[in-house]
Amino acid sequence: MAPTKKGILERLDAGELVIGDGGFVFALEKRGYVKAGPWTPEAAAEHPEAVRQLHREFLRAGSNVMQTFTFYASDDKLENRGHTQRFTGQQINEAACDLAREVANEGDALVAGGVSQTPSYLSCKSADDVKAIFKKQIDVFVQKNVDFLIAEYFEHVEEAEWAVQVLKTSGKPVAATLCIGPEGDLNGISPGDCAVRLVKAGAKIVGVNCHFDPETCVKTVKLMKEGVEKAGLKAHYMSQPLAYHTPDCNRQGFIDLPEFPFSLEPRILTRWDMQKYAREAFNAGIRYIGGCCGFEPYHIRAVAEELAPERGLLPPGSEKHGTWGSGLDMHTKPWVRARARRDYWEKLKPASGRPFSPAMSAPDSWGVTKGHADLMQQKEATSQEWKTLQLSLKKSNAHL
Amino acid sequence: MAPTKKGILERLDAGELVIGDGGFVFALEKRGYVKAGPWTPEAAAEHPEAVRQLHREFLRAGSNVMQTFTFYASDDKLENRGHTQRFTGQQINEAACDLAREVANEGDALVAGGVSQTPSYLSCKSADDVKAIFKKQIDVFVQKNVDFLIAEYFEHVEEAEWAVQVLKTSGKPVAATLCIGPEGDLNGISPGDCAVRLVKAGAKIVGVNCHFDPETCVKTVKLMKEGVEKAGLKAHYMSQPLAYHTPDCNRQGFIDLPEFPFSLEPRILTRWDMQKYAREAFNAGIRYIGGCCGFEPYHIRAVAEELAPERGLLPPGSEKHGTWGSGLDMHTKPWVRARARRDYWEKLKPASGRPFSPAMSAPDSWGVTKGHADLMQQKEATSQEWKTLQLSLKKSNAHL
Amino acid sequence: MAPTKKGILERLDAGELVIGDGGFVFALEKRGYVKAGPWTPEAAAEHPEAVRQLHREFLRAGSNVMQTFTFYASDDKLENRGHTQRFTGQQINEAACDLAREVANEGDALVAGGVSQTPSYLSCKSADDVKAIFKKQIDVFVQKNVDFLIAEYFEHVEEAEWAVQVLKTSGKPVAATLCIGPEGDLNGISPGDCAVRLVKAGAKIVGVNCHFDPETCVKTVKLMKEGVEKAGLKAHYMSQPLAYHTPDCNRQGFIDLPEFPFSLEPRILTRWDMQKYAREAFNAGIRYIGGCCGFEPYHIRAVAEELAPERGLLPPGSEKHGTWGSGLDMHTKPWVRARARRDYWEKLKPASGRPFSPAMSAPDSWGVTKGHADLMQQKEATSQEWKTLQLSLKKSNAHL
Amino acid sequence: MAPTKKGILERLDAGELVIGDGGFVFALEKRGYVKAGPWTPEAAAEHPEAVRQLHREFLRAGSNVMQTFTFYASDDKLENRGHTQRFTGQQINEAACDLAREVANEGDALVAGGVSQTPSYLSCKSADDVKAIFKKQIDVFVQKNVDFLIAEYFEHVEEAEWAVQVLKTSGKPVAATLCIGPEGDLNGISPGDCAVRLVKAGAKIVGVNCHFDPETCVKTVKLMKEGVEKAGLKAHYMSQPLAYHTPDCNRQGFIDLPEFPFSLEPRILTRWDMQKYAREAFNAGIRYIGGCCGFEPYHIRAVAEELAPERGLLPPGSEKHGTWGSGLDMHTKPWVRARARRDYWEKLKPASGRPFSPAMSAPDSWGVTKGHADLMQQKEATSQEWKTLQLSLKKSNAHL
Repeated sequence: MAPTKKGILERLDAGELVIGDGGFVFALEKRGYVKAGPWTPEAAAEHPEAVRQLHREFLRAGSNVMQTFTFYASDDKLENRGHTQRFTGQQINEAACDLAREVANEGDALVAGGVSQTPSYLSCKSADDVKAIFKKQIDVFVQKNVDFLIAEYFEHVEEAEWAVQVLKTSGKPVAATLCIGPEGDLNGISPGDCAVRLVKAGAKIVGVNCHFDPETCVKTVKLMKEGVEKAGLKAHYMSQPLAYHTPDCNRQGFIDLPEFPFSLEPRILTRWDMQKYAREAFNAGIRYIGGCCGFEPYHIRAVAEELAPERGLLPPGSEKHGTWGSGLDMHTKPWVRARARRDYWEKLKPASGRPFSPAMSAPDSWGVTKGHADLMQQKEATSQEWKTLQLSLKKSNAHL
Repeated sequence: MAPTKKGILERLDAGELVIGDGGFVFALEKRGYVKAGPWTPEAAAEHPEAVRQLHREFLRAGSNVMQTFTFYASDDKLENRGHTQRFTGQQINEAACDLAREVANEGDALVAGGVSQTPSYLSCKSADDVKAIFKKQIDVFVQKNVDFLIAEYFEHVEEAEWAVQVLKTSGKPVAATLCIGPEGDLNGISPGDCAVRLVKAGAKIVGVNCHFDPETCVKTVKLMKEGVEKAGLKAHYMSQPLAYHTPDCNRQGFIDLPEFPFSLEPRILTRWDMQKYAREAFNAGIRYIGGCCGFEPYHIRAVAEELAPERGLLPPGSEKHGTWGSGLDMHTKPWVRARARRDYWEKLKPASGRPFSPAMSAPDSWGVTKGHADLMQQKEATSQEWKTLQLSLKKSNAHL
Repeated sequence: MAPTKKGILERLDAGELVIGDGGFVFALEKRGYVKAGPWTPEAAAEHPEAVRQLHREFLRAGSNVMQTFTFYASDDKLENRGHTQRFTGQQINEAACDLAREVANEGDALVAGGVSQTPSYLSCKSADDVKAIFKKQIDVFVQKNVDFLIAEYFEHVEEAEWAVQVLKTSGKPVAATLCIGPEGDLNGISPGDCAVRLVKAGAKIVGVNCHFDPETCVKTVKLMKEGVEKAGLKAHYMSQPLAYHTPDCNRQGFIDLPEFPFSLEPRILTRWDMQKYAREAFNAGIRYIGGCCGFEPYHIRAVAEELAPERGLLPPGSEKHGTWGSGLDMHTKPWVRARARRDYWEKLKPASGRPFSPAMSAPDSWGVTKGHADLMQQKEATSQEWKTLQLSLKKSNAHL
Repeated sequence: MAPTKKGILERLDAGELVIGDGGFVFALEKRGYVKAGPWTPEAAAEHPEAVRQLHREFLRAGSNVMQTFTFYASDDKLENRGHTQRFTGQQINEAACDLAREVANEGDALVAGGVSQTPSYLSCKSADDVKAIFKKQIDVFVQKNVDFLIAEYFEHVEEAEWAVQVLKTSGKPVAATLCIGPEGDLNGISPGDCAVRLVKAGAKIVGVNCHFDPETCVKTVKLMKEGVEKAGLKAHYMSQPLAYHTPDCNRQGFIDLPEFPFSLEPRILTRWDMQKYAREAFNAGIRYIGGCCGFEPYHIRAVAEELAPERGLLPPGSEKHGTWGSGLDMHTKPWVRARARRDYWEKLKPASGRPFSPAMSAPDSWGVTKGHADLMQQKEATSQEWKTLQLSLKKSNAHL
């Protein structure tokens, strides 16, 4: 079936919209298959039915891409986290490819193999060492014949460039996204300059993912687009933001918010917020529109519904959703039926039901980057180190 | 396997804790398998893999009860909503029983067959007519040999009494929950009086579900307990609240909040809120502790983790969750590792990230009850009626 | 001029509305003449021009009563606070009477001499000792021939009764207000019972002042009225609430809010909130409607404007205020001119401009009453004692 | 006494701090002497005791400058507003000068004569016409021998330049402030460029006043300072911000906030916010630090207390204020005494007590400037015009 599908670049070159999927790590954490902290994807091998089901839900919601659930599935990361005893990195990567392909075959979706930033880079390993890590994952992707590759979730453009350089050796189309905002990467390199470097390294699609809310991400990709165009280059653009409102973030993104990762609930975007995102991303010239942490299938469906006029179709999952709340015309209570209209939902400012909570938080003011001693994650060092840190933090907060 | 399990009353009589599951309707709506508005459970027959997966996640999270996904699966409701063309009520009810049993067999869980309030009652049909509706569902439950029965989500204690009367003819243990708050049912009958009537009708377990947040539900069940004890009766108590903060609700519950049902996100409880709920419910003498709309598997896991000392075990899903955030000691960023402690999460007041939204909403002031013309849901009348209402509402809001 | 004026009871008996003034202590603290902490009124003798000016502003705003600025002007309080070196209690009380009379003579206002709760009562002095304190102040009021007397700001109805008993020996009409909410006085005596005891002690006007917002105060006076009527007694009713929103207070009132007294700004009522208060107080049968801490002259003017139809006149200060914002029709900006209408202001939910602040606070949970060791304010003990307390509080907050 | 005082430039040149006063228009509106809408200062002639008292309060609070209460006291404005029937512009300006001088003589304060933007400019009158307006006011200031002159509250730098050019003909030192934020004047001229033009026109002190909160104003003056220094020029810097939090303003400032001018209460800065402002202004190199609308005397006192170390003295009004709340050590309640410390107040995030209000507002999106038909305030046209506008606004808001 796959051979008959149009490839990612064919679609984008033809002006088609591509809808991405949502972040698996957070979604599966809530379902009980991923552990917050390590955030590793062993569930692909351990609980394939849960991963398959989530793929299927995103497919129903309108996703055209099934990303292999291989986030942080590099060997250096997995070792650090103690998961190699049960499954090798290769096993996890292979299982993830098989699941993505199985579900992609059920609809109009492509399979994308993904790599992300490595502990090795943060520990100042050499370019060759870091590239060797990527190469190992990519070997699996090539063997499993994924449709294209994504280098995603990079805080430093330099490491992303290295990843792109390795990925393009596969001969498959390469996309690259940084987890940065308008201020640029952690070394202060602007979104425009980052994008130019990624394009020059060989990425055909560039953009951002994770760390910031849709509004911020669209703004950042706009800056990338301006940079690429100013440099006389060409690219396609993608955005895969958080499903959390983050107006109060600094450069480090939602990681620095005090609510990360276990009290982000009040920040979750509604489906109507998502429709707004989809429209703004489209208007900004972004044609690969997906999501990251916090996205549930209904969020992607909202993106697909907003862009149904442009795509010429509703997603399968809309069988269970009346556009703009119109399904409420079958609700029991008449005053709820009266909410079955766009005007109502578009204007509503939803209350938090939390009168003791503020609207915004002050993020931690960490700006740590590559090479910082605390980020050298030698397996043996980790646990001691944070305990010391924790103690000193406790002391410094003693007067709060 | 099932024959060796202890029954629901054996457990409660022995002083054991029983952990319920969460609401399937809202969870599956977000996953793309239930339509908001009709809220009917045809997915049991239509997409069994999705329903099975959700059962399994709750089981992993610690649930001791798999409720059959048969909410609103009475024939009068299904007809109203146009679903009978594809599946009969009997087919849906049977499929739901099979799925619940299949997953219950994978762990230490019982199967509970559930019935809920009917359009027939709101349309003032006779007691016999309403009871006949319940009887039809129960016939399936008996044939499928569920372990016990729950009459849940009743706004009028009278209808709940009728349901209990029918349910107890099965010979199986009967639980009954109303969707009411401390002000009592929609006719103003107090929680204490409601509980007494349900116990007298034959319910062995009484309590509340849906419509209000955990704090309100625990308060209401306390009032029920006081009423039952004052009347010299005996019962077990259960609570299955929303996973939404609703400090601003009136008697009608979250249905009347302007955010219902599509903008409730900022109200979602965190896992820490859930631990607080579990402790408060336990302290109030409630021994059947579960959830309703808004609950995701991780919410039930939080209940199970809070009560792990009392139960003597952690749920299977805790393999992927460090108690009180301790899994964060393996996070990359050291300042996030410093959050791996109970003190941090218990005290945090999470920001909403929504500076243009208030903390509370003013609920609609509807108090419509049984017999109101707008609630007579003759299939043919529904769509016309709400359009007229909507128009008049639009007019009356014109100056807002 | 004074002889020709109708007395307070003549007015109330005739069904007339009486508009009180606002609290001088907070208003003059902001102007630089009262010290927060001691809260004593030596400014009457020290800076008479500032006190006179504030009287005059309330008169212009519509007040029918000039309360002598004698709050906490009992000798035991003044001594505690170290003010006797410059002015005796008698000098302060006399100066305050003269100022109130001077301004009252400029318009249609009466002079009310006020006494409030004493440190002696909190230190468990005898009824005779406490009454002797009141007697000393009243001697001045009688000599200065004030028009009536108010016993105000009592947390314990017992002490208020003693005050009323002393006040009525003057032969002048006596009003009495407690600083309590719907839960009753600090000993838990209900508002209804409190009111009955005050009426029986000789008060012709009873009600509440300070400690709670208008909504709470009106609710409390309603309970007083119900109590008095149920007891077959008769009285007039008054309310002099805070100009601060206090939905989050416990029994102790705004003293326990963490914002007291230096960060209450975000809670200040708007003029429109005040019009609502005036209407609700009127509808509750309250005919003496004034204010306490936080009230500025424009707040009293708002009360007078709301009740202008009932009183048949606007206050002099309305020469500088268009009702419901109508003065804005002369604003430079046309979009501000468009706000010159009741509808606009009545519906506005004003933003706080404080995205890092919550909507509500958790009050301190102190419930200390008469006789508590910490409240025995022997001059010599005070400073040592609080330092110890402060240290221990710091310690107990160390983990916050 | 005045002759022996150091002039404004002597002070600033010597590196001394100069503390300004607060805005009289808003303060006297609350006291009942200024009408919101016209905002004219006839009270100087009509109610001199009220104006004198406010001057005195600011003097006690630490102000070194008594600004004549002559805001909007140009003849074209007064005529528009119908005040000339009782007092001529000249009478008002003269009375204001006398009051300011009388109180300045009571302490270490100078008198500053102020002019502000004119309706004539907005109506596109010629430079000569506009200058003639300023000349008339300045003639009074010269005759009354004020100590220096301030051109303040200009939205267009061009009009401010004209004002400065006229003011410097007096031979007195000239200060000039615009009511702009970091985005610049209403024509988009940057703060830096504005400041350069004002210095070149002859202003020795430049800065901003009104329209924005302290944080925004300090930021804007910093940009002015950078501009002036980059141009190789020299100047002193001043800021006189609002006492309202305005994080949500656009270029037009607080005028465009829906709360302006009658529901700004929740935005009022606390005294601790003011201490923060004073420190930040000082650190930014601003040496003339005062306030504008919303400032009460205690706000200026907070500025003076924060800068007491630098000035070497506390203001007279601190006789009634314990620094950082230390006066609370004499409060009756021990838990309030425990708040007598800097740490407590500096960290407190004060609740609004308004759970139905948001943290921020969406400002009106007006950006109207000079020459817009709606701003041509021909006396005869005004009232008709706004009624039409109001109607159309009502219509366009009908669906909100």
